[in-house]
Amino acid sequence: MKIEGKDCRALWLENSIVKFIDQRKLPYKLEIFSAKTVDDVAFAIKDMVVRGAPAIGAAAVYGMALGKKDLQKTAEKLRATRPTAYDLFYAIEYMIEQITNGKDEFDAATKYVEDIVQRCKKIGEYGEKLIKNGMKILTHCNAGALATVDYGTALAPFRVAYRKGKDFFVYVDETRPRCQGLLTAWELHQEGIKHAVIADNAAGYFMKNGEIDLVITGADRIAKNGDFANKIGTYEKAVLAKENDIPFYVAAPVSTFDNSIEDGSKIIIEERGRSELAEINGKKVMPDWTTVKNPAFDVTPKAYVAGYITEEGIIKNKYV
Amino acid sequence: MKIEGKDCRALWLENSIVKFIDQRKLPYKLEIFSAKTVDDVAFAIKDMVVRGAPAIGAAAVYGMALGKKDLQKTAEKLRATRPTAYDLFYAIEYMIEQITNGKDEFDAATKYVEDIVQRCKKIGEYGEKLIKNGMKILTHCNAGALATVDYGTALAPFRVAYRKGKDFFVYVDETRPRCQGLLTAWELHQEGIKHAVIADNAAGYFMKNGEIDLVITGADRIAKNGDFANKIGTYEKAVLAKENDIPFYVAAPVSTFDNSIEDGSKIIIEERGRSELAEINGKKVMPDWTTVKNPAFDVTPKAYVAGYITEEGIIKNKYV
Repeated sequence: MKIEGKDCRALWLENSIVKFIDQRKLPYKLEIFSAKTVDDVAFAIKDMVVRGAPAIGAAAVYGMALGKKDLQKTAEKLRATRPTAYDLFYAIEYMIEQITNGKDEFDAATKYVEDIVQRCKKIGEYGEKLIKNGMKILTHCNAGALATVDYGTALAPFRVAYRKGKDFFVYVDETRPRCQGLLTAWELHQEGIKHAVIADNAAGYFMKNGEIDLVITGADRIAKNGDFANKIGTYEKAVLAKENDIPFYVAAPVSTFDNSIEDGSKIIIEERGRSELAEINGKKVMPDWTTVKNPAFDVTPKAYVAGYITEEGIIKNKYV
Repeated sequence: MKIEGKDCRALWLENSIVKFIDQRKLPYKLEIFSAKTVDDVAFAIKDMVVRGAPAIGAAAVYGMALGKKDLQKTAEKLRATRPTAYDLFYAIEYMIEQITNGKDEFDAATKYVEDIVQRCKKIGEYGEKLIKNGMKILTHCNAGALATVDYGTALAPFRVAYRKGKDFFVYVDETRPRCQGLLTAWELHQEGIKHAVIADNAAGYFMKNGEIDLVITGADRIAKNGDFANKIGTYEKAVLAKENDIPFYVAAPVSTFDNSIEDGSKIIIEERGRSELAEINGKKVMPDWTTVKNPAFDVTPKAYVAGYITEEGIIKNKYV
């Protein structure tokens, strides 16, 4: 991704130090967090200096490389950071295997990270074909380079299309409660891609007025039948897209397909705390007596999906 | 409406002083703004101490009563406060006519205000019939007593049902950008009605999970064919309600029907400023470089409406 005009990543290795774009400070300030030890890396994951499953996996492989001397203890520390992150555990196991088999720890880590980046780039190359000059495209939440080391998933097609010289405009849902749309806006702003943030309430208005031609979002988990879980509000946008005959695409690596889940009804949705809705960046935006309900994700049935943009190509949804 | 357990209104007359619930302070603090002069009343309207077309009309009739001695000058001052408010002009003309015809100014003002309150009460009585024990009901924005002197429009059925002893639960959309859902939450909290505020993104989730049985919103303007304009996001909720077979009702006095407008396509939507989205209560929630688009209202086609709850009864929409 471009940051202040230069090529950059969400995290990278530099002289045996793991450098992170500090996502706790975004979109307000660009700061680099330097992790010199395994403890620093564990802190970065736990405190959300880095977020997004693929980027957390990348942090873990670098952490394992730094802590090679006591592999089991390193693994233990890293596993304890975000106990529900699948990529984290996968990355740790991968490094244990590589190092145990005598592979160089930094080579192994680099290979893991480059693999993530290449998959995202491929998603961008396939997805780019959907973007025509003059299009207006909606995205929800942040499925960007910040979450995936580089390119992003939903944002990868935008990057590739822009770098090929295509002219298009992105509508960015604010994505309450956590306002991750602002991270997307920050990435697009850095890249130079034309965009505007809108209230989540306004997406339907723009769709109905013919001002949105395409929707691309990410996915947290895709069931065997194509139903998928993603940030709360994704289902709303998918229903509105269908009602207005706008194609809705999901961009995700094939590893997001979880064949152990038959359909979306089996996906359990996390209800999160009150403060996510009642505060923005630590500032109160609701009075103390306010009662809230805060589901963090929703499930969108496959019937609303035009296709899945993966690193192996676009899987058209025959049900649409 | 109930406030701190007592019967109250958004504004009232007390010893020739117009008292307002200061809506600039809500939902954080309950403060009374006292207007002793026409200038005070004009300030209250202009500075949004009072908001909502019917409540502004009520403020205007009280203002005219206070400034009876120089009717034309009073009318001029009040007309200049909110130049697009239809109820404001209507209320001023009404008072000029009444006073010119020798009617007592306070009697005339009281009659006007009681008429508004009675219409809202009637809306509540008709709408209450739609509410069954155990129902979960969604509302959007604030079509409450604060905007209409007492009862509200969309909130009137909740008040009447609650006072009859019905047991139900209200989901309140936050209603970004201006978060008027918090005013609704404040009214329900004061009344004792069970409710929770949700992110605008979450309404679809609850609908799909069978947790919403009914939707009631207000309307700013209803075209001859039944299409209606209301706060941004109303269209989204209406589409989602239809998709999930949930009846969607609009509560509004018959004066909201504007027969001079054939259909919704003739309603012009105001795009409002950046700060509404980028700030909440004067606190920045987006960085300075953020570009936004901020339509304030949307139009919902009649096909999504189950019926219109008015003071003359419920008009079922034959198109649904």
